[in-house]
Amino acid sequence: MFKTVTIVGVGLISGSFALALKQHGLAERVIGVSRTEKSAKKALELGLIDEVMPLDAAVKAADLIYVAIPVDASISMLQQILDNVQQHQIVTDAGSTKSQICAAVDNHPMRARFVAAHPMWGTEYSGPEAAVKNAFTGKACVICDAEKSAPDALKAIEEIYQTIGMHLLFMSAVDHDMHAAYVSHISHITSFALANTVLEKEKEENAIFELAAGGFESTVRLAKSNPDMWLPIFKQNRDNVLDVLNEHISQLRKFKAALEKENYDFLQELMQQANRIGKILE
Amino acid sequence: MFKTVTIVGVGLISGSFALALKQHGLAERVIGVSRTEKSAKKALELGLIDEVMPLDAAVKAADLIYVAIPVDASISMLQQILDNVQQHQIVTDAGSTKSQICAAVDNHPMRARFVAAHPMWGTEYSGPEAAVKNAFTGKACVICDAEKSAPDALKAIEEIYQTIGMHLLFMSAVDHDMHAAYVSHISHITSFALANTVLEKEKEENAIFELAAGGFESTVRLAKSNPDMWLPIFKQNRDNVLDVLNEHISQLRKFKAALEKENYDFLQELMQQANRIGKILE
Repeated sequence: MFKTVTIVGVGLISGSFALALKQHGLAERVIGVSRTEKSAKKALELGLIDEVMPLDAAVKAADLIYVAIPVDASISMLQQILDNVQQHQIVTDAGSTKSQICAAVDNHPMRARFVAAHPMWGTEYSGPEAAVKNAFTGKACVICDAEKSAPDALKAIEEIYQTIGMHLLFMSAVDHDMHAAYVSHISHITSFALANTVLEKEKEENAIFELAAGGFESTVRLAKSNPDMWLPIFKQNRDNVLDVLNEHISQLRKFKAALEKENYDFLQELMQQANRIGKILE
Repeated sequence: MFKTVTIVGVGLISGSFALALKQHGLAERVIGVSRTEKSAKKALELGLIDEVMPLDAAVKAADLIYVAIPVDASISMLQQILDNVQQHQIVTDAGSTKSQICAAVDNHPMRARFVAAHPMWGTEYSGPEAAVKNAFTGKACVICDAEKSAPDALKAIEEIYQTIGMHLLFMSAVDHDMHAAYVSHISHITSFALANTVLEKEKEENAIFELAAGGFESTVRLAKSNPDMWLPIFKQNRDNVLDVLNEHISQLRKFKAALEKENYDFLQELMQQANRIGKILE
């Protein structure tokens, strides 16, 4: 149980995290730090936070500081926060990339107070209005470079995520970013590209709207995601994302070749291979 | 209200359709025709159908014959059924492609008893166990080449789909197949290819299972779809699917180029374009 938790950024992730903390009796008071007055006000209205403070005061007042802002902004933010924390405070983040963030604070004298984490939950929506109750439950939380965090800080973060229903995985920041490219970042690229494909080809927007079936909606859902959040993720994880994207294009070329050559045995085989994903996800 | 409806094929679509008929009081008795005894037995057990009959007897006994089998098998099946129906009977299908099916029966003396339809609902599962209640509701049903159906037959099919909560769209079979390539078939190709990408790159299957977040699950969901159903769809709609697939590959290449050249303004622009799909689908 924390007396005071400060969330930096009052959006989908931090807002849902704040709701989970309250729901599970893990925080007495939640302070919000926001870049915009509008979001701060909305977060207060929605009961995600108890009060709004400027960064410095909010960091000073908190036992736990939770950073959930775009991953480019996270780098300088975490450095600035670590410059100002004491040995009893804990800092953690929820960024979708971990290598550059961890590298940036690697030599910081307060590195041990930081726990690098990625709770693997999200939706295509953003902002305080997107925060929901019972987020995170049943999903994975990756903790990176755990050996660089102080045991008490690590234990506290582990306990929070376990209490709100996540299972923990431990790996290096570098390994995290590789896996995240496969199981998350590429899905967003394909979804953005699929939306652009349909928008390009289907000039009758009304037909998209009228005909769109469940399959289409689920594959383009992520195309609604916020570019301000995703651009820095793709930037920071460029090499891994390019690697997976190249593979994806060559997999699509196999489907194209099978269709062009009317090689339907091969097409059948490609689909049967893909079916294996069902067994793995079960 | 039909006294007797025969469903040919006892799977996801026909099974869900039979449940909807019963739920809305649209059929007194439902007869099932199945290629395999196992599926027939299962459909009986699940209460999707009231009895099982061989095709000829089942066609003879029915006021309405509903064909929902893979689209290659549909062609000869519909010809055979039309060879055996009387002027008071109605035949319809639920195939995901319409051009080849409509072309195949175009000159049949009983063509007017046939209504070509595509209720645009489905899941990645198949077989009688996949049938669910309240399917179809809120989705589109496309009726093709409506002018070739007898007014009474057309009206009956329209009333059924409206009663079970679908909105109707009318277009030519050729236009249907073009639109279906955009809003349904390409989603399946990308999902199959995405699954193969991840299976190829991510050798640690455990990592896929452990890390897979909601975004990944929704984009690869369709990769679990049955190849026996999808192969004939891709075959019949080959030209349209290839056209959209080529566009999709070139859209993905734009993302690749933006990342390779670190042209992040372009990457941002591509994502902003894609965001438009959200407004269209709302």
